[in-house]
Amino acid sequence: MATQLFDKETTIELRKKHIGPSCKVFFTKDPIKIIRGQGQFLYDEKGERYLDCINNVAHVGHCHPHVVQAAIKQMELLNTNSRFLHDNLVQYAQRLTATLPEKLSICYFVNSGSEANDLALRLARHHTGHQDIITLDNAYHGHVTSLIDVSPYKFHQLGVGAKKDFIHVASAPDVYRGKFREDHPDPASAYADEVKEIIEQTQRKGRQIAAFIAESLQSCGGQVLPPPGYFQKVAQHVRGAGGVFIADEVQVGFGRVGKHFWAFQLQGEDFMPDIITMGKPIGNGHPMSCVVTTKDIAESFLNSGMEYFNTFGGNPVSCAIGLAVLDVIENQALQKHAAQVGDYLMALLNELKEKHPLIGDIRGTGLFVGVDMVKDRLKRTPATAEAQFVIYRLKEEHILLSADGPHRNVLKFKPPMCFSREDAKFVVDKIDTILSVIEKAADPDRETHQETPEIGGCKRKDPSLPNEDDEENVRGGGRRHVGPGEEATHRHKAAKKRLRT
Amino acid sequence: MATQLFDKETTIELRKKHIGPSCKVFFTKDPIKIIRGQGQFLYDEKGERYLDCINNVAHVGHCHPHVVQAAIKQMELLNTNSRFLHDNLVQYAQRLTATLPEKLSICYFVNSGSEANDLALRLARHHTGHQDIITLDNAYHGHVTSLIDVSPYKFHQLGVGAKKDFIHVASAPDVYRGKFREDHPDPASAYADEVKEIIEQTQRKGRQIAAFIAESLQSCGGQVLPPPGYFQKVAQHVRGAGGVFIADEVQVGFGRVGKHFWAFQLQGEDFMPDIITMGKPIGNGHPMSCVVTTKDIAESFLNSGMEYFNTFGGNPVSCAIGLAVLDVIENQALQKHAAQVGDYLMALLNELKEKHPLIGDIRGTGLFVGVDMVKDRLKRTPATAEAQFVIYRLKEEHILLSADGPHRNVLKFKPPMCFSREDAKFVVDKIDTILSVIEKAADPDRETHQETPEIGGCKRKDPSLPNEDDEENVRGGGRRHVGPGEEATHRHKAAKKRLRT
Repeated sequence: MATQLFDKETTIELRKKHIGPSCKVFFTKDPIKIIRGQGQFLYDEKGERYLDCINNVAHVGHCHPHVVQAAIKQMELLNTNSRFLHDNLVQYAQRLTATLPEKLSICYFVNSGSEANDLALRLARHHTGHQDIITLDNAYHGHVTSLIDVSPYKFHQLGVGAKKDFIHVASAPDVYRGKFREDHPDPASAYADEVKEIIEQTQRKGRQIAAFIAESLQSCGGQVLPPPGYFQKVAQHVRGAGGVFIADEVQVGFGRVGKHFWAFQLQGEDFMPDIITMGKPIGNGHPMSCVVTTKDIAESFLNSGMEYFNTFGGNPVSCAIGLAVLDVIENQALQKHAAQVGDYLMALLNELKEKHPLIGDIRGTGLFVGVDMVKDRLKRTPATAEAQFVIYRLKEEHILLSADGPHRNVLKFKPPMCFSREDAKFVVDKIDTILSVIEKAADPDRETHQETPEIGGCKRKDPSLPNEDDEENVRGGGRRHVGPGEEATHRHKAAKKRLRT
Repeated sequence: MATQLFDKETTIELRKKHIGPSCKVFFTKDPIKIIRGQGQFLYDEKGERYLDCINNVAHVGHCHPHVVQAAIKQMELLNTNSRFLHDNLVQYAQRLTATLPEKLSICYFVNSGSEANDLALRLARHHTGHQDIITLDNAYHGHVTSLIDVSPYKFHQLGVGAKKDFIHVASAPDVYRGKFREDHPDPASAYADEVKEIIEQTQRKGRQIAAFIAESLQSCGGQVLPPPGYFQKVAQHVRGAGGVFIADEVQVGFGRVGKHFWAFQLQGEDFMPDIITMGKPIGNGHPMSCVVTTKDIAESFLNSGMEYFNTFGGNPVSCAIGLAVLDVIENQALQKHAAQVGDYLMALLNELKEKHPLIGDIRGTGLFVGVDMVKDRLKRTPATAEAQFVIYRLKEEHILLSADGPHRNVLKFKPPMCFSREDAKFVVDKIDTILSVIEKAADPDRETHQETPEIGGCKRKDPSLPNEDDEENVRGGGRRHVGPGEEATHRHKAAKKRLRT
């Protein structure tokens, strides 16, 4: 059993003293101290077990022994930079590209999703000679300067005028809450036509598009699945304007979506991005990442005359770990497992939807699932406070889930891929109970008593809502977004205020 | 004994097939395949040993057992993100900040020197509300978009017009080759006054300085040691204009300079940067990095409303490794060792300088040492081809050294910190022999024969010069720098051509 060096209070104090205050913990008012992980479970300093429904980084399960052993073996032997020849680098590149369309054959190894997306933008700009980027609303692509520029979720927080001239924002292709919904005859074309219009407007201003960048499934946008065919149509418009298509698979790659190894493949076999970026799950928590592109784009980058070196990228230890992660996905058939457990989870959640008017939409694929909570199914009014309350209550039940999307009302499942049917049943049952309590409390004919939570008009003692949960939620926390987000923030603040009284 | 999966030719072919061609290997024509590392030694696929004089990343020695054991122990237990409380994070922050002036107390953990420098720029811009950055000529600060902007060594390669309006380049404070040299009565003030002028010019254009960024010792600039007092004076000017001082210690921190733990401390006790960035040696090869700043700057960043999350940054494994590296530096007294071996190396090299007119200048501190090779001591004409030849010949002797600086004529020592007196003697003796051969060959009265290298007018068979060596050298390779660099490139190309005939 692991022991702790400091008691929890000391850890919190030292954190306050030495860690940037912009770096938030989960559940600010009562953060969790985790000292051990195994599979889909995390253990706190008291040995108490939490079911982890959110860590898509610990892809094949926390501390998977095959991955750890591969790391140990290589760390004991050699860990140096990629200016020396090494078999791990080329073997990993070979195995990774074997999962992709043949033309996506050239790899650049880096250390994080942010480094990957930044390099993707550099590749696109060198290849096209253009500067402008089209991104989707609510998108998040990373924390370095160039990526905040293409992340409306981040730059909206900086207020009006934060969008750079060379950035163009297209509507998120969200068929539940977006401009064109499930009742539209062809939402894929409608959303793609908007990108076409943006390109034309941009060109009329004498500007040129270098790239369209999108997550293959929008994660912080609230588990948004673009309608199939959307990427093909967008790619046609973008390539027609001399630009390239960047698929950001940092959150959703490596078999998570079940049906395919890569989420962009959900769009159909006739779609291939020009550049794909990877991250989080690639090393099961080890800092590594990759950009894969075509020979043509790689040649253009070479011809720029600027060489590329990344001190840690593609080192033998990172590659050994990457190889081991691929082994586990294959040997444990985790992609198929994600498809099966994901289907089961979706079925359970759809049953819940029948029962609870607070659930407006269930969407997802594999182990990437969203539950869109609404106050009113017709108006689809986001039930932000209610979603936050669910997360809070689940934490008390030792289940880690997050709420996300521009309104922070979408319960978001992205667990380690070893997440089981039993786990799915366990968490859905708990959500069922919590929703029943909220709905009962919201019913004017309800019996009131001290223990009833004040959410949507109900009361609860010492609530201490989590005001962040994962990378995306945090962004929701402090945003100054004008538009629906603003509304959501106000609503959220009002809900928090209610909960504190 | 480690074995290889592919034979060397297959490794090379797979690399050509799958790795971005902009990512170069050492010694392109005859690259080295390394499969094992220990201390200051690397071993190729035949078990042949190379003395490593260049890997400042493997700071406490390749595969140091204490570091590997710390990694193993933590990898088996937990590796997750910093939204959970963990003792390793706060313990490491506590120990790291204990090496710094008291006011530098707030840490942000990231994955690479590039992520660190990008975040430093973000911190500076949020804190000051200004946008413009002053950087030094020949500087390299990283490979992401925002850092290419502040790296003249990189953006000069893109030709005229590549410098952005918000970037201002000050002369490198190089007292051997720069504007103000060792014969100047006060080069520190003279170079700092130039920064002051830049600030004033910038302000006249209605622009405002966010930061001055500099490596504490310029590495790719050719092992340049700024004259003591320069940073203090620059900081005064920059702070007077509302900007902050960023010290980039990515290459030179963690005791390498011998006298101090941080290279900026060489400037004097009265100097403290506002932001310090770390990288390469911090995790002995593990991808990790840190930015440390003051409470005030951290508060400004918080007040921007944008939270900061880095998926892998500050994870328990990275922090365990960071702690183990600090342990080894302390327990093996590596800082003191670097001072002693460095002094000895400098003494040996100074003896060599007495003997060989090809050596123009020896400069350095601790295990960060440069040998500036010249064709003519009076004119200080860079002996680029000769330096490249030394590197090539040393490789044949199984010694890995690099040549750097804008003219690629500075032999650069930055070995693992366990580099010994014997190692120093061994490599200096080899350089002695090689320089004698070159000098003898260059002498018009020499006996010519087939085996004599054609450098500076001599001949050599099948030379296959390395055209890159480490991060900085590579940049030298393809540059289109107008100015002294241009000249150097021509000279280098001419030298290569001569060598090929």
